[in-house]
Amino acid sequence: MGGTDDIADWNGRRALITGGAGFLGSNLAHALLARGAQVTLLDCMLPNYGGNPANLAGIAESLDWRREDLRALDPAALDALVAGQDAVFHLAAQTSHMDSMADPLTDLAINATATLSLVEAMRRAAPRARLVHASTRQVYGPPQRLPVDESHPLNPPDCNGVAKLAGEQYALLYARVHGLPATALRLTNCYGPRMRVKDARQTFVGVWVRLALEAKPFEVWGGDQLRDFTYAGDVAAAMLAAAAAPPGRVAGRAFNLGGFPPVSLAALAELVIAASGSKAGFVTREFPAERRKIDIGSYQADDSAFRAATGWAPAVDLAAGLAETFAYYRSRLAAYL
Amino acid sequence: MGGTDDIADWNGRRALITGGAGFLGSNLAHALLARGAQVTLLDCMLPNYGGNPANLAGIAESLDWRREDLRALDPAALDALVAGQDAVFHLAAQTSHMDSMADPLTDLAINATATLSLVEAMRRAAPRARLVHASTRQVYGPPQRLPVDESHPLNPPDCNGVAKLAGEQYALLYARVHGLPATALRLTNCYGPRMRVKDARQTFVGVWVRLALEAKPFEVWGGDQLRDFTYAGDVAAAMLAAAAAPPGRVAGRAFNLGGFPPVSLAALAELVIAASGSKAGFVTREFPAERRKIDIGSYQADDSAFRAATGWAPAVDLAAGLAETFAYYRSRLAAYL
Repeated sequence: MGGTDDIADWNGRRALITGGAGFLGSNLAHALLARGAQVTLLDCMLPNYGGNPANLAGIAESLDWRREDLRALDPAALDALVAGQDAVFHLAAQTSHMDSMADPLTDLAINATATLSLVEAMRRAAPRARLVHASTRQVYGPPQRLPVDESHPLNPPDCNGVAKLAGEQYALLYARVHGLPATALRLTNCYGPRMRVKDARQTFVGVWVRLALEAKPFEVWGGDQLRDFTYAGDVAAAMLAAAAAPPGRVAGRAFNLGGFPPVSLAALAELVIAASGSKAGFVTREFPAERRKIDIGSYQADDSAFRAATGWAPAVDLAAGLAETFAYYRSRLAAYL
Repeated sequence: MGGTDDIADWNGRRALITGGAGFLGSNLAHALLARGAQVTLLDCMLPNYGGNPANLAGIAESLDWRREDLRALDPAALDALVAGQDAVFHLAAQTSHMDSMADPLTDLAINATATLSLVEAMRRAAPRARLVHASTRQVYGPPQRLPVDESHPLNPPDCNGVAKLAGEQYALLYARVHGLPATALRLTNCYGPRMRVKDARQTFVGVWVRLALEAKPFEVWGGDQLRDFTYAGDVAAAMLAAAAAPPGRVAGRAFNLGGFPPVSLAALAELVIAASGSKAGFVTREFPAERRKIDIGSYQADDSAFRAATGWAPAVDLAAGLAETFAYYRSRLAAYL
């Protein structure tokens, strides 16, 4: 009936990915299928979110894709969804900071209420299945020190941070109180193939990549801020590692996920231009006022705890990751606009 | 149209109290009316919560009581509710830790979603009105040090703590980002007239008081835990002080509210017996397993920041407060069973 303590081999294992047609979810689906897992995706393809059929090119026939909204499933449907799964990767989320300020109730319903419904279902119907919850560095707010480790104060700077913190805390609480083997990964900027490039709702890097491919200049707000970036393939590897690690090392814990040393946004912009070959370059602008109110400034994750617990390490640095990214979108851009 | 920077005098001021027929809300209503304020109460009298018509004895005719559920009001109704208010005291809440574990979605809807709806309405329709949000020490989880000041890590130990933290964070966020003059008070054990005594959903002290009045023994779980207690009248005074203080001192801040030095639960039990004259005494029991999982152990608030910001200090110590409490319930117990 599914549920397990250790996952040494994904072959034949059953995995559910919420938000599975989105950026990180689809990369994870590709990785799981390549390892022989039986994959169920939940994704209702909301227009302003990350879901895109192009993300599932080549694998859509090999998995069970349910176009349903987690918010709309009743307890019986949720129980049926999670029952028998060995692992649940919860990536369905509202990720836009600006959208969370404009429509905070939707953000809360997706990021906290639906997450709570999911862990409730797992408590009832899949209490031994591993849960990997996609959390965010946003829970820390503007860093009080760099790099940021998991003991940094929690101070969410926007509605998205508040709701994502609540969702993460439910997952961790269900581990502590109900024994659900849940682990949260606090993600920093993620980028790579299958990210949303239509707008900045998911990541500003997507917009930069698109504009560079269209030979148009992109805007860098500020430029001095330091940020670390995790390549999509490394995120997928981290999630698999979190699900496979002995529960005693990871259950009930929130881990930062980082990657290679941080770079300034100006330096990232130069790398994007170099990888794209765009002659349009970029322009540096003052931060828009509405955005500045909720921006966190520089950020660098200390992810040593996660590396120590799982052995994970990033494999793809920014130059290589951007090269992969442009190789992906060069032939597929139309499907993402 | 209401809204103000400073409230030196409550006479003629308009105040809204959500959860206004409950324990702390009704004590606050009495205090506001005594100061000449025009008071609107929102309370839909859910059966397992704190609302009780007996709490409004003597004042029900002097205020505008709307028996509506915050969760059921649409944005237009919420805007109409808050428009013109000088101060909003948000006390409508699900407070039972055990109920939050049994029905976490209801807890989240009341403590986070409804709070977000309320601050959204204030942003739109009452952006200068003072907001005093009733938060809880539960956001800290088991104390890592005593006394607990506001820099203590946030680590909610149960679903109630997660949802209350989200609600509080929304209030503080709306102060920082939208300029709403909101202040959160992280309450410790509150007791006194008008508390729920039917069961322990609101406070275990209520059950002790009732059983002592009924000449039955009450149960003390553990007994060594240190806790601090705030008398209901002192809580009301603190809320008025928070609403009246210069916004520069209190807006956007969460403050602990404590009181007199802490006592052990065993010592409290002795005080309850002494104040009641009950000959039935009490029995000491091991913690029930389900309760132990989410109990926080000893707690003592460091509330020096709030005292410094507002000049508030507790006036009623435990012996005096318990005497007032028994004087209140001795003639009114039937209305609370």
